[in-house]
Amino acid sequence: MSHVVCVTPNPAADVTYEVGALTPGASHRVGRVLQRPGGKGVNVARVLRALDVPVRVVVPAGGPTGTWLVDALRAAAHDGFRVQAVPVAAETRRTVTVVDAHGEATALNEPGRPLTEAEWVAFLAATADALSGAGALVVSGSLPAAAPPDLPARLVGLARDAGVPVAVDTSGPPLLAAIEAGPDLVKPNADELAGIATGDDVLAAARRLVTLGARHVVVSRGADGLLGADADGVWRVPAVAGVTGNPTGAGDAAVAALVHAQLSGTPWPDALAGAAALGAAAVLADVAGEVDLAAYRRFLPTLSAERVV
Amino acid sequence: MSHVVCVTPNPAADVTYEVGALTPGASHRVGRVLQRPGGKGVNVARVLRALDVPVRVVVPAGGPTGTWLVDALRAAAHDGFRVQAVPVAAETRRTVTVVDAHGEATALNEPGRPLTEAEWVAFLAATADALSGAGALVVSGSLPAAAPPDLPARLVGLARDAGVPVAVDTSGPPLLAAIEAGPDLVKPNADELAGIATGDDVLAAARRLVTLGARHVVVSRGADGLLGADADGVWRVPAVAGVTGNPTGAGDAAVAALVHAQLSGTPWPDALAGAAALGAAAVLADVAGEVDLAAYRRFLPTLSAERVV
Repeated sequence: MSHVVCVTPNPAADVTYEVGALTPGASHRVGRVLQRPGGKGVNVARVLRALDVPVRVVVPAGGPTGTWLVDALRAAAHDGFRVQAVPVAAETRRTVTVVDAHGEATALNEPGRPLTEAEWVAFLAATADALSGAGALVVSGSLPAAAPPDLPARLVGLARDAGVPVAVDTSGPPLLAAIEAGPDLVKPNADELAGIATGDDVLAAARRLVTLGARHVVVSRGADGLLGADADGVWRVPAVAGVTGNPTGAGDAAVAALVHAQLSGTPWPDALAGAAALGAAAVLADVAGEVDLAAYRRFLPTLSAERVV
Repeated sequence: MSHVVCVTPNPAADVTYEVGALTPGASHRVGRVLQRPGGKGVNVARVLRALDVPVRVVVPAGGPTGTWLVDALRAAAHDGFRVQAVPVAAETRRTVTVVDAHGEATALNEPGRPLTEAEWVAFLAATADALSGAGALVVSGSLPAAAPPDLPARLVGLARDAGVPVAVDTSGPPLLAAIEAGPDLVKPNADELAGIATGDDVLAAARRLVTLGARHVVVSRGADGLLGADADGVWRVPAVAGVTGNPTGAGDAAVAALVHAQLSGTPWPDALAGAAALGAAAVLADVAGEVDLAAYRRFLPTLSAERVV
């Protein structure tokens, strides 16, 4: 199978601190400290690997945290998981999630530090290289401070030039610009959709993104399931009932499922059902980027897409 | 002037996150991110440099955070500030302090990761090297997980073998063991004193530490000032009235003042007054390890030690 290029313009080292209770104004001794490579494109790549799809991860990496990130990604790398790091001067950001004894999580997300224009050119060039022979490109997550807002659009352009299907999962003006560049898929959640298509209801907003240039639009709506729109109409898939756990990474798993479905020629309604099932399987896993494959196989036959328009 | 060796067995990269408000359970976008070398011995060294005393900093350093710490210390280094890093396998810890818009600080302190026995031997050897020609040794702060509890006592032994005066600022059983090794100075705060001399009042507890082996005992009591005990008696210095600010590092500044006084042959009551003045000058500085020298010179003539026993 061709590889999928997973691009993360704003990766992070995701740190978890375990504390008894988080009390603002107090001093805390942290218990266990965990650190893992983070960023939505990294999560998508890990889920694709779980589905046996070869991946190539493209990330900018700078400073000691960038060195750590690349080393950690490479330690997990093997034939089907390759890492293309673009060296940059700015230190890669970290996120800190404080988890208390009841499992309540408090997130502190550092902003990504600015890259130079030359570094963005190198990042685009590395992506273009990785696209050679690729089956798909996935562009995921936020942009660092001061990044060119048309960066996702430029990445869509690179993929189209290379004849490679491209999915985009970002938000705000960069998402809107990417849609106008003609991607095969965008996957906003309900908030992200409202942020670029204000005033419309979800169904009308999704259809509008199709009109603007996206071939497929999938809106993830948590407990309300998924909505999928293309030029032919709109489909709906309910969420798997009664699934609770860690919602971080569920959207990334849905993107991975949709890309996998495209690579394997799965019909669109079945692709949507698979995305809902894999998103639910990600909620059951403790860590973003992991999925409960047994649960996925259990959920899959229980879901189907219903045409609404 | 001879140099002072400042040993920090458990250094850290001290990170500050600025947020609008810290809400447990919520996700926060961090504004400004600051990172500076931390650890009590590093603070003592920086204050001694502000007093024109040459210093040599000894720290274990491991992993990307350790590399950052040593680079950051060396970037500030010059002829009078030398860094002796002992390479270790375990990554150097970090502390994260979340500061909200009202200045309220919430501290999250990672535990120090364990060093191997061979790494502790290398750390002791590096300290012994640095003691050659030194005017004083200062041992500051906590120990990493699983460190030998007699490490401060062994450092006191090294200094005594080299004929170098030694000050110890730590807590718990390691402090008690260090006192029995005969240091020239220990500086517990009131809580640390209560932790090793339970049941006594402050004055009796300080005198007991002298009996146990410490030549001078200085107890820092925040707004209640300083208490100093030795074989001759007990002295008290009031705190500078009306000083508010950042108390982190005030104890380190007091230690620096006491060591500086010893090096320059300042009489004991004047040394105590100087320690109270420099501690107050540290409270006025935003950052631990810095002091407001103009305020120090203003405070100094207003303070004097009063004999209480």
